Amino acid sequence: MGKITVLGAGSWGATLAQHLAGNIKSRQKNAGIVSLWEFDKERARSLNATGTLPTLPALKLPPSVKVTDDMAEALSPLPEIIVAAVPSFAFTQTLNQLKKILERFDTFQKEDIPGIVIATKGFVGNRHLLPSVETAKIFPFLKKIAILTGPSHAEEVVRKMPTVVTIASSNLKFAGHVQEIFASEYLRVYTNSDIIGSGLAGALKNIYAIAAGISDGLGLGDNTKAALVTRSLAEMSRIGTALGGKPQTFLGLSGVGDLIVTCYSRHSRNRNLGEMLGQGLKLKDALKKMTMVSEGIYASKSLEIIKRQNPRVFPRHCHTPIADEIYAILFHNKSPVKSISSLMTRPLKSE
Amino acid sequence: MGKITVLGAGSWGATLAQHLAGNIKSRQKNAGIVSLWEFDKERARSLNATGTLPTLPALKLPPSVKVTDDMAEALSPLPEIIVAAVPSFAFTQTLNQLKKILERFDTFQKEDIPGIVIATKGFVGNRHLLPSVETAKIFPFLKKIAILTGPSHAEEVVRKMPTVVTIASSNLKFAGHVQEIFASEYLRVYTNSDIIGSGLAGALKNIYAIAAGISDGLGLGDNTKAALVTRSLAEMSRIGTALGGKPQTFLGLSGVGDLIVTCYSRHSRNRNLGEMLGQGLKLKDALKKMTMVSEGIYASKSLEIIKRQNPRVFPRHCHTPIADEIYAILFHNKSPVKSISSLMTRPLKSE
Repeated sequence: MGKITVLGAGSWGATLAQHLAGNIKSRQKNAGIVSLWEFDKERARSLNATGTLPTLPALKLPPSVKVTDDMAEALSPLPEIIVAAVPSFAFTQTLNQLKKILERFDTFQKEDIPGIVIATKGFVGNRHLLPSVETAKIFPFLKKIAILTGPSHAEEVVRKMPTVVTIASSNLKFAGHVQEIFASEYLRVYTNSDIIGSGLAGALKNIYAIAAGISDGLGLGDNTKAALVTRSLAEMSRIGTALGGKPQTFLGLSGVGDLIVTCYSRHSRNRNLGEMLGQGLKLKDALKKMTMVSEGIYASKSLEIIKRQNPRVFPRHCHTPIADEIYAILFHNKSPVKSISSLMTRPLKSE
Repeated sequence: MGKITVLGAGSWGATLAQHLAGNIKSRQKNAGIVSLWEFDKERARSLNATGTLPTLPALKLPPSVKVTDDMAEALSPLPEIIVAAVPSFAFTQTLNQLKKILERFDTFQKEDIPGIVIATKGFVGNRHLLPSVETAKIFPFLKKIAILTGPSHAEEVVRKMPTVVTIASSNLKFAGHVQEIFASEYLRVYTNSDIIGSGLAGALKNIYAIAAGISDGLGLGDNTKAALVTRSLAEMSRIGTALGGKPQTFLGLSGVGDLIVTCYSRHSRNRNLGEMLGQGLKLKDALKKMTMVSEGIYASKSLEIIKRQNPRVFPRHCHTPIADEIYAILFHNKSPVKSISSLMTRPLKSE
């Protein structure tokens, strides 16, 4: 294992940098480092100095992780793999910047571009694409693209609590290589070949986490929430297969696993946002109380646009009643009480 | 809607009696009553007098629910449907008693036996059959058998919190009729035709709830638990389809829905038992702290016997690593820490 560059030093990027540095050390003493790129100069300086983040007090970056706001520096010498862990709204811009820097290298050969492991979940860019699809557009010659997904809140991975994730890639050889790089005693890594389905699940689940949070905020109880999460899984799976994913992906770690943790965990920002909305807060007031981004809001908007882009599929062949209610709550001020009540009182039917 | 007889006045049976009485009243004033049969004379008397249960303080039986320990009285006049809600260990005995009483009726015609709705989850009798299969053995001429399942803790249904359940029957006409009888503003009822798969899911999920509780008791966090529940769903679905259920059932309310609520709800007795085991209590000491039955212990033993009865399927074509660990913990004093650790460190593979 050589050098690894992580782009994005939010909670998840910083956690992955710490984890990978630990993995490298346990295998080869004094060999390899991790470069962690952070967009914001002041945040990069503070993280380098303290080794921790205000949003993630359990983080303790070892000295082998070098934090910098200079992406060219983070990429020199060229790493074995690049891990992209920026928020979805910054993904396209970050990868375009990455491309420009890679092209400046004297030794640049398209075939030698490091493999990219995407830890960003959501839809990205003006065209609301999956990060893996956007990456393939920006680096059309790159054969090594994988996504890291599954139930993995940074708050627990950083404390080395047992976690099981998935590396999805249409290049299973690369997936196996990434699996070896990431796996440790406390991080178990599966692979799968459905990068589209796994990516869609990772993006869509945040919409349903807002719904689950609303149910919590309304005080509706465990039965209601379990029913809502079950119908969310069915809806997510319906959308995912309509857009090219494989049905069985939604039953795995990147599907039901990530959905459950996002809907039930105290660490879930999207669930927390939903809970505040359920308790009666207006969206703008709820957002003021949050220190981190809610990816579910972006995903809700993106899904609405994707649906309009695919009028032959939506809504005729693929109904999305739960996502529709969340969109109405977030963007048209619909009352959460009315939404949940309209979902619960649809006509009786068979499953 | 005429008269309904509920057999078994535990939390769930009493809740269903209260719910059905409310439904009858809202549709026909002063028409029809609910008879609730309770095995124990003293408990029947107390429930009749107080209208509530020590284990379920929110219960308030209306006067139209008549509680009796005399099953013949509960069945006279003959009800439209019989709801069986006794614990799994008492199921076979109760249905044999029911059969004897029905045969004593002057007007007894096999074709006129009331339809039976089974609210008992688990495996029953010496042969460890599903309650629906046992019922068909005891009443071979009965064409109207359904099960009631899905995420439905009595503690919330009794408080009229929105709940969504499934009525499964190979007789879809009967399922539709039962759906109409049970549905209300706060209880949404779906139907499905896979009575075997739905019954297996309802029985097996209690084993996995013990596993989820152990993870909680060990303090392993939300990532671990979500991974464990995801692998549990896959395992439950594997067992269920090997034994004759349909795969899609495990994605519905009676599958993933009931599994989630049992693994995450504060009301789940099986999860609570697992949590105590995870905290280091011995099984016999944990059981002393419980006021109600843990169906998961019975289900674990039954599954072990069912596996031995089907050596061509288990373990060669259907591995059950999580259920195996739970069996070893419950019946061979295996340490929960060792179990979870052996599950988390199995060789890396693809999903």
